[in-house]
Amino acid sequence: MPKPSLRETILDAGLKAMFRTGYHGTSVRDVTAAAGAPQGSFTNHFRSKEAFASEVLDRYFLYVRGLVAEALDDRSAPPRARLRRYLDLITGKLANDGFTRGCLIGDFSLEASGSSELLREQLDAIFREWRVPFAACIAEAQAKGEIASDFDADELADFLLASWQGAMLRMKVERSEAALARFKTIAFQTVFKELP
Amino acid sequence: MPKPSLRETILDAGLKAMFRTGYHGTSVRDVTAAAGAPQGSFTNHFRSKEAFASEVLDRYFLYVRGLVAEALDDRSAPPRARLRRYLDLITGKLANDGFTRGCLIGDFSLEASGSSELLREQLDAIFREWRVPFAACIAEAQAKGEIASDFDADELADFLLASWQGAMLRMKVERSEAALARFKTIAFQTVFKELP
Repeated sequence: MPKPSLRETILDAGLKAMFRTGYHGTSVRDVTAAAGAPQGSFTNHFRSKEAFASEVLDRYFLYVRGLVAEALDDRSAPPRARLRRYLDLITGKLANDGFTRGCLIGDFSLEASGSSELLREQLDAIFREWRVPFAACIAEAQAKGEIASDFDADELADFLLASWQGAMLRMKVERSEAALARFKTIAFQTVFKELP
Repeated sequence: MPKPSLRETILDAGLKAMFRTGYHGTSVRDVTAAAGAPQGSFTNHFRSKEAFASEVLDRYFLYVRGLVAEALDDRSAPPRARLRRYLDLITGKLANDGFTRGCLIGDFSLEASGSSELLREQLDAIFREWRVPFAACIAEAQAKGEIASDFDADELADFLLASWQGAMLRMKVERSEAALARFKTIAFQTVFKELP
């Protein structure tokens, strides 16, 4: 059986550490200590802390893409219900962590985008890609007459994903589901209101 | 003429540094170096980095309260227009920084609330206080029949402030006004739609 790669162990430890103390607050030393790896093994696998954080972010987005597919790809439900299902699915994941962790993409957007041009461009590309399946689902809901067509599906998708980040931000401060529930209730009775 | 207090200089430097590298990524050494102050003067004035960050946050919220009053207190405009004016006023401030800085309250909410219980409780109190003038303005707009009364004014105020944080988050990644403009357009034609 192949030995589990130290590279993977270091990436896992990095994700946990950066969730806790952010990009700036996490040192290579913190990560290798948490991974139980010698510091030299970090430099064997990663060019810099910035390049490492970029890989952590990519792995995290891979996980998010799986959740997006799980919620939006099941065509047995109507599109508006699938949008809602995504937010409910995320809510369940956040509840598992006691509402102490939000989304690494949002965390890095506020904390790292100002000082790392590499991460900022990567985050920009992530948001653009993230929007695509949501815009498709929203366009489908509009075509079916489930929701209003006053706004472009791309614009509504960006609005949804950004506002949801705001709800998670408030959730982290309150350590409760309240802001998530509020967002879902209000957004789905106004912006994404079901047409009669 | 009294000498400008080193305490104030250190607080100003701390605000700038924490905007750039966050709570975890800013050391006392960074702050004193930026303030041109000996490190000992920091410990003369502040108990710990956490206590210092708490004062920085309080000073920042004092500034925000001024902007809230500037936008919402002028009763010559109708309440719905005053809400919109707040977002436009903030947009102007963010444009002055080239959309590279957002809101320290949002930054700390994501980055510091998980590790500092002191800051988390302070942020929670800030959001509760911040909501009050917005809820009053929204309730006034509802009483005048300017906007719908389907939701409680407190809930709408929390929704507005949280979603606006999400728009600023996306703005920081894109370094453009787009997410702010999108939020204002969509929110004021749906959630805060003017009734006929």
